[in-house]
Amino acid sequence: MRVLIKNGIVVNADAQTRQDLLIENGIVRQLDDDIIPQLPCEIIDATDCYVMPGGVDVHTHFNIDAGIARSCDDFFTGTRAAACGGTTTIIDHMGFGPTGCQLRHQLGVYHGYAAHKAVIDYSFHGVIQHINHAILDEIPMMVEEGISSFKLYLTYQYKLNDDDVLQALRRLHLSGALTTVHPENDAAIACKRAEFLAAGLTAPRYHALSRPLECEAEAIARMINLAQLAGNAPLYIVHLSNGLGLDYLRLAKSRHQPVWVETCPQYLLLDERRYNTPEGLNFILSPPLRNVSEQDKLWCGISDGTIDVVATDHCNFSMAQRQQLSGGDFNRCPNGLPGVENRLLLLFSSAVITERITPQRFVNMTSALPAKLFGLWPQKGRLAPGSDGDVVIIDPHQTTEIRHAEQHDNGDYSPWEGFRCTGAIVRTLSRGETLFCQGEFNARAGRGRFLRRKPFSHPNHTE
Amino acid sequence: MRVLIKNGIVVNADAQTRQDLLIENGIVRQLDDDIIPQLPCEIIDATDCYVMPGGVDVHTHFNIDAGIARSCDDFFTGTRAAACGGTTTIIDHMGFGPTGCQLRHQLGVYHGYAAHKAVIDYSFHGVIQHINHAILDEIPMMVEEGISSFKLYLTYQYKLNDDDVLQALRRLHLSGALTTVHPENDAAIACKRAEFLAAGLTAPRYHALSRPLECEAEAIARMINLAQLAGNAPLYIVHLSNGLGLDYLRLAKSRHQPVWVETCPQYLLLDERRYNTPEGLNFILSPPLRNVSEQDKLWCGISDGTIDVVATDHCNFSMAQRQQLSGGDFNRCPNGLPGVENRLLLLFSSAVITERITPQRFVNMTSALPAKLFGLWPQKGRLAPGSDGDVVIIDPHQTTEIRHAEQHDNGDYSPWEGFRCTGAIVRTLSRGETLFCQGEFNARAGRGRFLRRKPFSHPNHTE
Amino acid sequence: MRVLIKNGIVVNADAQTRQDLLIENGIVRQLDDDIIPQLPCEIIDATDCYVMPGGVDVHTHFNIDAGIARSCDDFFTGTRAAACGGTTTIIDHMGFGPTGCQLRHQLGVYHGYAAHKAVIDYSFHGVIQHINHAILDEIPMMVEEGISSFKLYLTYQYKLNDDDVLQALRRLHLSGALTTVHPENDAAIACKRAEFLAAGLTAPRYHALSRPLECEAEAIARMINLAQLAGNAPLYIVHLSNGLGLDYLRLAKSRHQPVWVETCPQYLLLDERRYNTPEGLNFILSPPLRNVSEQDKLWCGISDGTIDVVATDHCNFSMAQRQQLSGGDFNRCPNGLPGVENRLLLLFSSAVITERITPQRFVNMTSALPAKLFGLWPQKGRLAPGSDGDVVIIDPHQTTEIRHAEQHDNGDYSPWEGFRCTGAIVRTLSRGETLFCQGEFNARAGRGRFLRRKPFSHPNHTE
Amino acid sequence: MRVLIKNGIVVNADAQTRQDLLIENGIVRQLDDDIIPQLPCEIIDATDCYVMPGGVDVHTHFNIDAGIARSCDDFFTGTRAAACGGTTTIIDHMGFGPTGCQLRHQLGVYHGYAAHKAVIDYSFHGVIQHINHAILDEIPMMVEEGISSFKLYLTYQYKLNDDDVLQALRRLHLSGALTTVHPENDAAIACKRAEFLAAGLTAPRYHALSRPLECEAEAIARMINLAQLAGNAPLYIVHLSNGLGLDYLRLAKSRHQPVWVETCPQYLLLDERRYNTPEGLNFILSPPLRNVSEQDKLWCGISDGTIDVVATDHCNFSMAQRQQLSGGDFNRCPNGLPGVENRLLLLFSSAVITERITPQRFVNMTSALPAKLFGLWPQKGRLAPGSDGDVVIIDPHQTTEIRHAEQHDNGDYSPWEGFRCTGAIVRTLSRGETLFCQGEFNARAGRGRFLRRKPFSHPNHTE
Repeated sequence: MRVLIKNGIVVNADAQTRQDLLIENGIVRQLDDDIIPQLPCEIIDATDCYVMPGGVDVHTHFNIDAGIARSCDDFFTGTRAAACGGTTTIIDHMGFGPTGCQLRHQLGVYHGYAAHKAVIDYSFHGVIQHINHAILDEIPMMVEEGISSFKLYLTYQYKLNDDDVLQALRRLHLSGALTTVHPENDAAIACKRAEFLAAGLTAPRYHALSRPLECEAEAIARMINLAQLAGNAPLYIVHLSNGLGLDYLRLAKSRHQPVWVETCPQYLLLDERRYNTPEGLNFILSPPLRNVSEQDKLWCGISDGTIDVVATDHCNFSMAQRQQLSGGDFNRCPNGLPGVENRLLLLFSSAVITERITPQRFVNMTSALPAKLFGLWPQKGRLAPGSDGDVVIIDPHQTTEIRHAEQHDNGDYSPWEGFRCTGAIVRTLSRGETLFCQGEFNARAGRGRFLRRKPFSHPNHTE
Repeated sequence: MRVLIKNGIVVNADAQTRQDLLIENGIVRQLDDDIIPQLPCEIIDATDCYVMPGGVDVHTHFNIDAGIARSCDDFFTGTRAAACGGTTTIIDHMGFGPTGCQLRHQLGVYHGYAAHKAVIDYSFHGVIQHINHAILDEIPMMVEEGISSFKLYLTYQYKLNDDDVLQALRRLHLSGALTTVHPENDAAIACKRAEFLAAGLTAPRYHALSRPLECEAEAIARMINLAQLAGNAPLYIVHLSNGLGLDYLRLAKSRHQPVWVETCPQYLLLDERRYNTPEGLNFILSPPLRNVSEQDKLWCGISDGTIDVVATDHCNFSMAQRQQLSGGDFNRCPNGLPGVENRLLLLFSSAVITERITPQRFVNMTSALPAKLFGLWPQKGRLAPGSDGDVVIIDPHQTTEIRHAEQHDNGDYSPWEGFRCTGAIVRTLSRGETLFCQGEFNARAGRGRFLRRKPFSHPNHTE
Repeated sequence: MRVLIKNGIVVNADAQTRQDLLIENGIVRQLDDDIIPQLPCEIIDATDCYVMPGGVDVHTHFNIDAGIARSCDDFFTGTRAAACGGTTTIIDHMGFGPTGCQLRHQLGVYHGYAAHKAVIDYSFHGVIQHINHAILDEIPMMVEEGISSFKLYLTYQYKLNDDDVLQALRRLHLSGALTTVHPENDAAIACKRAEFLAAGLTAPRYHALSRPLECEAEAIARMINLAQLAGNAPLYIVHLSNGLGLDYLRLAKSRHQPVWVETCPQYLLLDERRYNTPEGLNFILSPPLRNVSEQDKLWCGISDGTIDVVATDHCNFSMAQRQQLSGGDFNRCPNGLPGVENRLLLLFSSAVITERITPQRFVNMTSALPAKLFGLWPQKGRLAPGSDGDVVIIDPHQTTEIRHAEQHDNGDYSPWEGFRCTGAIVRTLSRGETLFCQGEFNARAGRGRFLRRKPFSHPNHTE
Repeated sequence: MRVLIKNGIVVNADAQTRQDLLIENGIVRQLDDDIIPQLPCEIIDATDCYVMPGGVDVHTHFNIDAGIARSCDDFFTGTRAAACGGTTTIIDHMGFGPTGCQLRHQLGVYHGYAAHKAVIDYSFHGVIQHINHAILDEIPMMVEEGISSFKLYLTYQYKLNDDDVLQALRRLHLSGALTTVHPENDAAIACKRAEFLAAGLTAPRYHALSRPLECEAEAIARMINLAQLAGNAPLYIVHLSNGLGLDYLRLAKSRHQPVWVETCPQYLLLDERRYNTPEGLNFILSPPLRNVSEQDKLWCGISDGTIDVVATDHCNFSMAQRQQLSGGDFNRCPNGLPGVENRLLLLFSSAVITERITPQRFVNMTSALPAKLFGLWPQKGRLAPGSDGDVVIIDPHQTTEIRHAEQHDNGDYSPWEGFRCTGAIVRTLSRGETLFCQGEFNARAGRGRFLRRKPFSHPNHTE
């Protein structure tokens, strides 16, 4: 029941110190220069390693039914992969229920999905599939049950129009919930897609061409302004992939609007040339991969502080699923990439090792700030007395080559196959319990707990 | 048939020289240092005055039926006022026909309105009230008949949705027409308006509060991106009133997108405090007047070249109409301001006299560039051999106080009452004929000619 | 010894409330909804008026010897004028001593100038005229004596070169002092000036032409970078007059550099056309007046928060002095404008009445933030229990036309002659004592006290 | 005397076409779809390869005497390396002559260095080491002799102060010469360096720490403004390494100032972590390598068009020289990196292959625009009838690993050792003569010709 991590460099969002860290009954008890264990205690040597709050991945889709297929990770394989990548908390999206179904209905479904499966702590985002009085009236109850964020889609069959969005933003704001949004312009996509279909152009590269970056940028500007019009409602933009959207966000932030933005490793590290390879189907996701210049802009957005969070949008469809369902036609291929296991190491290697960001900023982007935005702070996202003993230990002196054969998800490929990273995830602890160590996963399905999240409060005012 | 303007400072968009200017049979024949008239010739002394191409006002609404009222200027009183303000060409908007009516139908109606009334040359913008195959198929025919620009509305009862807009942009682009747009987010306005109505808040200031600047900025960003998605279609934004929209346009221009933007004197010189005065109803227009900080930003947009054109959006409803129809309730007050007579002098005084812009830039913003964008160049918009002899003579050494009693429109007030301008419009000539001189208007209704406009071409490539 | 101000709108930088304000023994004692005076008490009715912290003008030059002339205001007439304009604290610049003189020497001189003259509280900025070990070593002692800010000049005969500037910035930073700077490129000015002199061009307009805005912008960028290179030393830029310098400051602020910037009413409201009038000499100051487009940019800088402070740079040379000394030649005309009496009303009228800024922001720009930056907070700059009872009462419903005949300085003209302001300074109190009321000044020379200022601390961390 | 390059993709700055290219007597004669050779003719198959104008590297330092050492490449080994990397024109910097020496003197010296050595065509930049009347008066003569660009240094022992710079800019501008500048703030470097020396900190990393990016950014802002103050003199900034300088340039360009900027592959691809390796000395150059975030910003500057040119600043000191001279102390290590052989391939691989820029833009940045800016167009920088037959053929389907053992300079290492590039330089022709093919160099020393360059004209107006 006691774990002492010795000699590591303990990193929080606001400080970095060589310290020992003591966890007792799953809770951080003490940080100090040299803690001498007095009771029976597991001792972990973290010399020359970073000891960081476990990752908080606020964007996953486990078990999701995308209509044409169910993603291949459930809450066991998904959270197992997360744990093996150093992530100790996930917030999954309640997938799409039957048309017209209640928010509460889906919450029940998702509790069912997760309860006996999750190996790390978890919560859910609500998803607003349609707007009516019943749905709006459910929101406060959901917030009370710990669901303090909801996602809107501007495309797909459950897209909301401007009026719906305004109603949702207002009610969510009033109810203490944060609105998140998948921003893509549905009409433009439909128009491009129809054009390509008519011309018989269905190869993976047409997936990207049917969703140009202006589709996404337009929807970002729209949401920024609708959030402002809805009474300065707080807004969280998911999976930013391009520089024009980033410019719109920079303007909004310079106007002091409460808006935050997430990007994902795939938008920072992979580019649209992948669609021209034989593995093109394996990279179909929305928004699609962009070109390298957009990556450059995103990196600038990270270094100047405009981009707040890196999450994964983990949504795992196997190569087998992709090929069988689509027959090579992007229109029939399920959208999404796996990645929950790779986020921390990819960002650590490409951003911390390269000195684009400091270790503190890394912790802020992957753990502390998402915990604050989504009502989990200070239980999650920091290593300080009273917080959960969720820890990832990263050794910056090792190197890791990503190979799917060594991953822990339930799919059959990794979009990062062959990536060489500087750094290694050497150990993950959840509430003091080691889930992953030396490449080995060892934990019980169902040990993860549902996190009843607090209502939204501005991170500047959070504790 | 010959007119010689002597000793003035002839200003074109690209040069300014003290020269004499000879017009023969309505056409500019010669510019030279000292022209000696050899045939019978009217001689006009323009010593110390600017001699400029007559104004081209590309944004008027004469005779418009706004549903609740018909505006009080027809093509006679409207063009008379224009002429007295130095404007020699207008492009009016074909107002809203019966639901579902053809473009050609409205063109016929408008030819009827204008033919025996206009005192200056004129054309019309088409208005796309709805989208279907018939309408789209009419576009090329309209362009052939000289109507090479069409307006879309994103609000009001004939608003277009994203899919409509994409179809319109594409077809117009393919057909050689320029798309213009009234950008305001309809859903947000409806939402605010309903809220105020429910609370019984109907005073003029709630007009402005129901259309915050984000309504407009959102629609501008949307149109910029949809135009890009429609194949880089050229786009002209009308009546910009705020700095956030300006920022979006600045971004688009820095990306080399073919987009242009117009503002109007009311957005540069009047502010929202007017709505709190007893004359509040007289200032109801859409987008509404903003605050002084937005004016500052627009002036910056003029000086840095982001704003391209100043037009008027002249849409004249009398105080009597406003009061009777509305009973003080902004929801029932017709929208629009008069101003076609005041544009040149207001901008001259506030921008040229203050040295914010040069006289050449003034000509470019009020005459040359609009002529290029809307297919009238080089017939209109310049003073060079072969162009029409449309001239405005401005004396920068006089001062003018605007009083409606001395104006030539058909309304009963001026929003500019009491404004003191440095400068005076001393004479206006249309095709060599003096229409206005020394405060006196003298011209025949119906002398104005319909201008069959050329298809759109990028002004950088225009002659 | 008790003063109760009733029914006013008490404005601080962070709040605005209709409240009563009680001052006791010169110190603010209480703010409350309705204070019932229980002891003998002077009662002031401030119904419908703003009750604000007295102005803090951190940029004046009283009694200054500019080499060719001594300015015509001493600490009596200068502070009298300040008080009549609502300013209750000034920080004057220790003028230029004999070459090589010690900082302490000048401090002694200035204590002598002020002691029996000042009617409001005051402090001094040190001026670093040259750099050597002795000067650098004096700095900590000066800070200890309450002089926690020092000015550097980049032009004039006491200009510092880059090496000097770096040494000064470092030592001042280490010593707890804020560096302020007059930023103009000396070489460029000298070069232009020599050119004009050689061509016999000495009219006032050549003053402006010899100091183009790039002279100032260059020096601003230089100082920003040198301050960063000196270990992120805090920096305060005085009298910003142009938009390019503003852009450089915006970039620095977006990089989170500790830099602040002041502008003055003359740069917001007067423009370079003044130099072409017969009164051109009366507007000679450095940097010179710019054009209206630069004003527009400064206003944008105020509304977006980039510009922090409005001060005056009051440096009063009479028309008589200007004409006699210069004979019309700008090279021989002393530089500077009066304005200490007009700052608050001019800014109130042009910025608060126009709604460019809120009353709170007005207080922040004119009183609270300068007090924080220059070590006077919370004694000055706020109305809260414990702070000095320094108050200005402004009636927004009156109008004031500025006439020098009614001013209280010792000069013979006002650059603002004839300006019509909305608002009126109706009363000024210093430590509870009314100095100015109903147009009448009534206070004893020498009642003002020297303010021993605290070392610099970042305003975000101040109290 | 005839060379026909068949089936390649001929790329110019403004177009890209699959064409054949015929060179006759060293001059491009014809481009056409399928040219049938009719006379004896060397035929080169360029199927699937890019056929581009040979590189123009406007920034080299061959044979330079840096005071403490002479660089190890002379005009033979330097131009040989250039040729083997696809560069067919270089403009070298006349190194530093004896104190006070005339421009003409150095020109004579450099003609001597190059005449019997150069294997490709060449010219020289003048270097202004000091300012006096004699030097200024020499400038027009130099321009007449074909030297139409001159470099100023703001640091090192021949740094110019602001007054010197202004005089130089004016005279160069009047004489038809382009001013180039090495922008670093000398005082700040001296200050940092002294500090490190005093502390005994002399390892290579202190080289970078003694020249922070603000040193460079400051000097860039200074030069931009001085150039403007010198009458809008054209300005070319060399070796940009950081994003703040880029922001200043972006502002200047948005103000339409005639300023251009070059970066080098080392600033795009290498970062300051190199200084912490045992090979740190091999990366000492000025400005120093920056961090990866600055690289990201430079890439954004390339994709948005702010950065105009990529050159090399080739200045080759061997490892042996570096180590022996410095003994590990950065203060005694000569500054500079080799790279003339690697520029085209590095940029092709990192920018064209990645689709950051198009092949046309690549040609513009490496050949066409530098030729225009430096008076060599249209002889150099394009493949069109009448231009020199200078060609580089690049195969995008091969890969190349850079190994110094296979390079052609005279040094003993490459900073790019081990870099894997996509693409290969397969052949270089100079005036129709193959200098490099299949890894083999074959050309006569002294075949290169001095290029008498035309005076500067703005590239927008250049033919």
